[in-house]
Amino acid sequence: MQKKTINQKTEPHFTASDTVRDIIIGMSDGLTVPFALAAGLSGVVSSTTLIVIAGLSEIAAGSISMGLGGYLAGENDAEHYDSERKKEYEEIKHTPEKEKKEVVDVFKKYGLNEEQVSPIIKNFEKNPEMWLDFMMRNELSLERPDKKRARNSGLTIAASYLVAGFIPLSPYIFIHNSRSALLVSAITTLLALTIFGYIKAKLIGNNPWRSALRTILIGGIAAGAAYLIAKIIS
Amino acid sequence: MQKKTINQKTEPHFTASDTVRDIIIGMSDGLTVPFALAAGLSGVVSSTTLIVIAGLSEIAAGSISMGLGGYLAGENDAEHYDSERKKEYEEIKHTPEKEKKEVVDVFKKYGLNEEQVSPIIKNFEKNPEMWLDFMMRNELSLERPDKKRARNSGLTIAASYLVAGFIPLSPYIFIHNSRSALLVSAITTLLALTIFGYIKAKLIGNNPWRSALRTILIGGIAAGAAYLIAKIIS
Repeated sequence: MQKKTINQKTEPHFTASDTVRDIIIGMSDGLTVPFALAAGLSGVVSSTTLIVIAGLSEIAAGSISMGLGGYLAGENDAEHYDSERKKEYEEIKHTPEKEKKEVVDVFKKYGLNEEQVSPIIKNFEKNPEMWLDFMMRNELSLERPDKKRARNSGLTIAASYLVAGFIPLSPYIFIHNSRSALLVSAITTLLALTIFGYIKAKLIGNNPWRSALRTILIGGIAAGAAYLIAKIIS
Repeated sequence: MQKKTINQKTEPHFTASDTVRDIIIGMSDGLTVPFALAAGLSGVVSSTTLIVIAGLSEIAAGSISMGLGGYLAGENDAEHYDSERKKEYEEIKHTPEKEKKEVVDVFKKYGLNEEQVSPIIKNFEKNPEMWLDFMMRNELSLERPDKKRARNSGLTIAASYLVAGFIPLSPYIFIHNSRSALLVSAITTLLALTIFGYIKAKLIGNNPWRSALRTILIGGIAAGAAYLIAKIIS
């Protein structure tokens, strides 16, 4: 789960990666888990009232939990970055010779020799902040997380889960026989997963049909497992 | 949700970030969603049989869905990286002057002038692969994803969800009155969330008690919302 904020871009590379990713995370779980739960319960109870209650509880719990989880993950990243930056700062301050050698090592990978690196090191010595930026990215492979990222990420995931969750659940709200509702729910969810997988791949630039097939597969496996487990233990 | 694989490290920075993150993702959802779902249903049904069925269905669906979601997110990252790298390769091949200017821009940020950058560019021209590596990291802020990452990530998330899910659910398996089971489940889950939040922060290097409090808050809000919704609609 590699994620970056893409900055300073001058070419038509894909930029919406983070938001799209959060929508994917929220929607794929929002489509499959409520569908699978409702399907599992359909094998056990004939009235849909309880399925709707369980489904709505799950959607509420799932969207809040995933949304807050996404928010905290974003905050963790920011804190992790800050703590690593602090360590690196101390290293530059207290063991500058070691850090200089590391700068040389980074540039050696790009084919420069020690002599060619020396003006860079001189510049870094004059600008410790710049040196720090360089080390964070090139030694530790860490990008500075966007401050608004955690909040946006949490809200996007929660909203996507909520919206997606109503797709498999709504048939149970309108149809009162659980077997008929399951059938409509399966068709609706299958359609939604196909469209979702297709659009997702189009946005990211991958093969859309392969993606649609994959998304259907996840939903199918998760729902099948839930259905079987409910059947076995009831 | 900034995530990197940390390579070529020579200092005692924290390295297990990705796996820890996946465990956090899986466990926090695995603790809160089944707990919240069971709590929601406890307000509606008095027998625990149905709660256990719904809970187990949810744990199966949730762990498979989240695990496969994590796997696909990892694969997406790898494909996204490859497609961006291909674009960048074409740019280096067809508009090298523009790309050279971009190299100069990157180093200007580090305080070098055009003349100081020229040996680097000469090296890049001899080694297009190296140039490409440099542009991916420094222009696009993208790190090459680890090949095994997607699979490991999926398995870690699914297993964490599964293990965590049984903590709030098991009281309903052994206690047949839903209100008593809810009480035991709430205490057990609260304890688990506290320990989980504390250890999580210790591993990452953040404030452990603040983290424990936060994790409890997520669980509490998600469960409270699920409980209320179930109460309102039943």
